[in-house]
Amino acid sequence: MPARNIKAVVAYDGTGFFGWQSQKKGRTVQEELQKSLQCMHSHRVHLHAAGRTDSGVHADGQVVNFFTDMPAVPAERFAPALNSRLPGDVRVLSTQEVPDEFHARYSARARVYRYFIHPGPIVAPVQRHYCLRLGRSPDLSRLNRLAGCLPGRHDFTTFSALADRSSSKVREVYSAAFYPDGPFIVFRIAASSFLWRMVRSIVGSLLELEGRDEPADSMRAALAARDRGLAGSTAPAVGLFLHKVIYDESASLY
Amino acid sequence: MPARNIKAVVAYDGTGFFGWQSQKKGRTVQEELQKSLQCMHSHRVHLHAAGRTDSGVHADGQVVNFFTDMPAVPAERFAPALNSRLPGDVRVLSTQEVPDEFHARYSARARVYRYFIHPGPIVAPVQRHYCLRLGRSPDLSRLNRLAGCLPGRHDFTTFSALADRSSSKVREVYSAAFYPDGPFIVFRIAASSFLWRMVRSIVGSLLELEGRDEPADSMRAALAARDRGLAGSTAPAVGLFLHKVIYDESASLY
Repeated sequence: MPARNIKAVVAYDGTGFFGWQSQKKGRTVQEELQKSLQCMHSHRVHLHAAGRTDSGVHADGQVVNFFTDMPAVPAERFAPALNSRLPGDVRVLSTQEVPDEFHARYSARARVYRYFIHPGPIVAPVQRHYCLRLGRSPDLSRLNRLAGCLPGRHDFTTFSALADRSSSKVREVYSAAFYPDGPFIVFRIAASSFLWRMVRSIVGSLLELEGRDEPADSMRAALAARDRGLAGSTAPAVGLFLHKVIYDESASLY
Repeated sequence: MPARNIKAVVAYDGTGFFGWQSQKKGRTVQEELQKSLQCMHSHRVHLHAAGRTDSGVHADGQVVNFFTDMPAVPAERFAPALNSRLPGDVRVLSTQEVPDEFHARYSARARVYRYFIHPGPIVAPVQRHYCLRLGRSPDLSRLNRLAGCLPGRHDFTTFSALADRSSSKVREVYSAAFYPDGPFIVFRIAASSFLWRMVRSIVGSLLELEGRDEPADSMRAALAARDRGLAGSTAPAVGLFLHKVIYDESASLY
């Protein structure tokens, strides 16, 4: 019986994790999933993820894949089986069998992130780990005018991290917009892929430019300059969610 | 300068607390607020609360009052001053001066609680501390037919805790209903006041009766019997929120 390729959609509360990727400093989401898979298979199972989220970043639609040699388990039963072994801050939302060539990272056509901003002075205690407390009410239409330069194919060096090792800083953004959602302002951005900390750098920069009442083309000028010195400070991890990953050829990328 | 009576609306995430009331086992919300008040006043300040929530129960509208001898602080400035000294799982939403005779507990005309139930098999990790995972989809109209007996003045002995020391088990319920709210089913109940663990006993009983497909009048029969043996198991604290407390003479009690 050949190994089957299983795709899993995963949600997690990033608060108690040192990010996605296994390392020695502390708990990671990857390690929790590996442990749960190992428990089922009695041997180590390798995992690929669509996005390696940073320490404190959450996910409501991370995607991973792994190859299983367990013949008797229907693909959709992996979700409850894994959940029964996982801690409450990680949940496998669904599992399905996919073609062998499916790779959570390399097959992804787009990633969508959402960043939650709380404009009021007081954040409800139950929401304190899941949003940035801005403490002021930004102007939504000004934020959207500033963000208007992001869609398209650009060199995002300005919004990259110093330690980023990507050979090219060019990425394609499909959509980027702020909208109100309950007590929050949400920034939603879809792109082919992202540089390390790019979403948080963009959010931090947009909020700073809006707060300083800079002209609508100031973000465009910062982007065009390809100069990290022109980015604002990186917004904290607490507000960021990896929302979904798009693979389907017929799906809209926005 | 006479002492001023200050009313504060308080929200908290009950996850990390051994309930409202100060005791020796661990952190309590009352103790955190007392510490914060003591820090401002340089002496101990006594607090009264509308409801003494249990270990793990949350609040989005608990009400307390205290007398202050600080002459220079405008009443509304107590909220940010206290918040600057409080941990993130307690927030003072607002403060205002009230007449001397106002008492958070004895002046309250009604308390409103909400209980959050997640019907699906998987609870999002970020919501795991704030709802009961039921794991099945109950029938909303059947639940509401069962709950239909609750409004009115009744002896709630059936839904009281064994250790309850109240001299009378009679309470007046103003409204009680289930409704859908996003991924949740919410049970909202308003009453003059509640017996210890009464809301959780009622929720546990209603869910059990619905799950066993009992007739619509089975809840009414359990209530009329004044027999604790007829109550279902007490629903866990995790889904319960003290939502608001009503004082205003002109306010609706529903």
